[in-house]
Amino acid sequence: QGTRDHAPAHAALRDRLLAAVVACFKRHGAAAIDTPVLELRETLMGKYGEDMKLVYELQDQGGELLALRYDLTVPFARYLAMNKITNMKRYHVAKVYRRDNPAMTRGRYREFYQCDFDIAGQFDPMIPDAECLKIVHEILSDLQLGDFLIKVNDRRILNGVFAVCGIPESKFITMCSAVDKLDRMPWEEVKNEMVGEKGLSPEAADHIREYVQLHGGLDLIERLLQDPQLSQNKLAKEGLGDMKLLFEYLTLFGIAGKISFDLSLVRGLDYYTGMIFEAVLLQQENDHVEEPLSVGSVAGGGRYDGLVGMFDPKGRKVPCVGVSIGIERIFSVLEQRVKASGEKVRTTETQVLVATPQKHFLAARLKLISELWDAGIKAEMLYKKDPKLLKQLQYCEDTGIPLAAIVGEQELTDGVVKLRDVATREEVRM
Amino acid sequence: QGTRDHAPAHAALRDRLLAAVVACFKRHGAAAIDTPVLELRETLMGKYGEDMKLVYELQDQGGELLALRYDLTVPFARYLAMNKITNMKRYHVAKVYRRDNPAMTRGRYREFYQCDFDIAGQFDPMIPDAECLKIVHEILSDLQLGDFLIKVNDRRILNGVFAVCGIPESKFITMCSAVDKLDRMPWEEVKNEMVGEKGLSPEAADHIREYVQLHGGLDLIERLLQDPQLSQNKLAKEGLGDMKLLFEYLTLFGIAGKISFDLSLVRGLDYYTGMIFEAVLLQQENDHVEEPLSVGSVAGGGRYDGLVGMFDPKGRKVPCVGVSIGIERIFSVLEQRVKASGEKVRTTETQVLVATPQKHFLAARLKLISELWDAGIKAEMLYKKDPKLLKQLQYCEDTGIPLAAIVGEQELTDGVVKLRDVATREEVRM
Repeated sequence: QGTRDHAPAHAALRDRLLAAVVACFKRHGAAAIDTPVLELRETLMGKYGEDMKLVYELQDQGGELLALRYDLTVPFARYLAMNKITNMKRYHVAKVYRRDNPAMTRGRYREFYQCDFDIAGQFDPMIPDAECLKIVHEILSDLQLGDFLIKVNDRRILNGVFAVCGIPESKFITMCSAVDKLDRMPWEEVKNEMVGEKGLSPEAADHIREYVQLHGGLDLIERLLQDPQLSQNKLAKEGLGDMKLLFEYLTLFGIAGKISFDLSLVRGLDYYTGMIFEAVLLQQENDHVEEPLSVGSVAGGGRYDGLVGMFDPKGRKVPCVGVSIGIERIFSVLEQRVKASGEKVRTTETQVLVATPQKHFLAARLKLISELWDAGIKAEMLYKKDPKLLKQLQYCEDTGIPLAAIVGEQELTDGVVKLRDVATREEVRM
Repeated sequence: QGTRDHAPAHAALRDRLLAAVVACFKRHGAAAIDTPVLELRETLMGKYGEDMKLVYELQDQGGELLALRYDLTVPFARYLAMNKITNMKRYHVAKVYRRDNPAMTRGRYREFYQCDFDIAGQFDPMIPDAECLKIVHEILSDLQLGDFLIKVNDRRILNGVFAVCGIPESKFITMCSAVDKLDRMPWEEVKNEMVGEKGLSPEAADHIREYVQLHGGLDLIERLLQDPQLSQNKLAKEGLGDMKLLFEYLTLFGIAGKISFDLSLVRGLDYYTGMIFEAVLLQQENDHVEEPLSVGSVAGGGRYDGLVGMFDPKGRKVPCVGVSIGIERIFSVLEQRVKASGEKVRTTETQVLVATPQKHFLAARLKLISELWDAGIKAEMLYKKDPKLLKQLQYCEDTGIPLAAIVGEQELTDGVVKLRDVATREEVRM
């Protein structure tokens, strides 16, 4: 349940998509790493908050207690700490596992690919953070997914907001998860949760709302830096200062127009400590698709300066910032588009079919195809001793093979091959 | 235990190796498929004989009972049956899981990559079988692994041998596993097992030995086709006839010289029904390596005509033949070679570092690198506001970046960039 086989047409399209993402990661100088699908259970413990129940655990068959990885970030942090690496730019494309309620039509699976790019190391503020957003911008632009928006926020600003609204620090995380629901629930329900379940005063809840409904750009940052309450909060001030720097860098990258500083953005995971972001596709106004596809967030990430330290015996911290591309959701969009366009995705790259119009030419075909393979040419033949020419040409048409190399009695005598263009039926002897 | 992280240098070399293997599979017209790492436990049941105990099982967390795949062949057969596919040429490169005793220095892991190519469908005899051997030959040649030998045999010939030696059919599989030990045990021990544990007469055991010590080429096939006993056995006769055909095709492919018909070859798995093969690297006589690496088999496979039928509710069979490339063992060989050669494997593909000799040039660097990325150029910069030029050039040397694009006050005024060849120190303004 929640997993699937990738049939050839599917796998071919997915490979194309992954290649585009990896090309971008390499363009930004990242090295590849790979970690096991299996992690020690204790490695994953306490990293995902409530989502821990979604981790797949292996049976105790003797030896270590194992689980399937839930994301690629925790294994990356574990890898850095284990190898005492304090400085690394890496990408990792691999499957992760979540015992979630699958919603396959919207691209939500229990086994799915993640494509992660992360920068670990102590650097000058917001330069790596800005690069992560540039990467999201490049990938979403390259894939021509239509208009999109990248929302950014900072955990320190959120915590500052909670503090000035009089929320005790012990409730920050649970407040985050309440605010996180604002994109799918009306304010009244979220307020009820804050007041009823989490014991806030209605005034404190309304105060939070005043902040978290704000979104904008540099102007909003400037305004909040002047906010009489927030500007007094150390964390919020730090966060807002860095947010201003981030927007400066994004302006130099020429992408600030697609970025929205959005105080309602929270991101689910506990380990974020600074800047956080999420990219969403915008429904075009002139979109008249029959089933409008609600794909939600297609990329996300942020800064997690404390995670590596959790794996280091001495608690040594390695600051990190990263981005994860939601490849499955993007794939759903691309697949729907390919379907709509009627484009036939070729599942093989075969350049030529070795064919014959006559019987008893298996040996000649085997010799010819062997020569082609050895010359690096992608070639196929039908696995029949005496196939009909029509069947052979039909196979080319069905699978998109552009050329047929035909060998018969005349060709064998003359020491040539007849090369046929399957589409135009033009033939040359060579 | 038995798993590992692939660090960048390792991952880069592995990607190079996998790319060569996939290129060969594509050259032979295979399409890619992908199946989940998780399979239903019942899918794997009864497919691996005694090795079933090596399957990783997931904990029962409610819902289906799951296990990690043990190979890519059983999932492929399950996929064909589930989708009623009777005809397919596919490759699959992915990780598989075995709770085996790891021997990491010899390339034996609990999590490892398999690279499989299989041809499913009812075709004229031995044409796809010959192509599988051609593929092994191409890959081992392309990778320049030194001299190698591909041993072939046929389960029908083995069964025929057992039959003419008076072994009841119920003991064929256990006889296979005894013969399989001949490559790591002396005959006397294997004989003791046959006689002591498995109840054979010493004469029957010696009779088996007469056959299983034979190896050769077409001449041996011809001789066995005349063998007064074997030639009377229907299965053996069929197998020998097909073996003869196989050698004809291999001769047309020009690779028969590397193939040895070897009656001691068994292959562990239960599901093989016809031709089987295994490729081994040969130690060169003039090899004087300090630790001669015993890597054993580097590729193997065979025909399994019954496996798909086990997953079909009506038992409909789809004949299959395939090859699995032992990428981990090949990797051990390549890694040792790279180490010996002192070659430094680059872990990134960065073409140019955007650098500056002066302070306060972060904005100029960010603008320039953004332009480079947008033009598809692989570029990096140090994540510091004011890095020293020496540090920047040192970074190029450490990571193998060939070029530095330098922007300072003069360059900015003149509207140019100074491009420096890191190795030769030549500079041009452009």
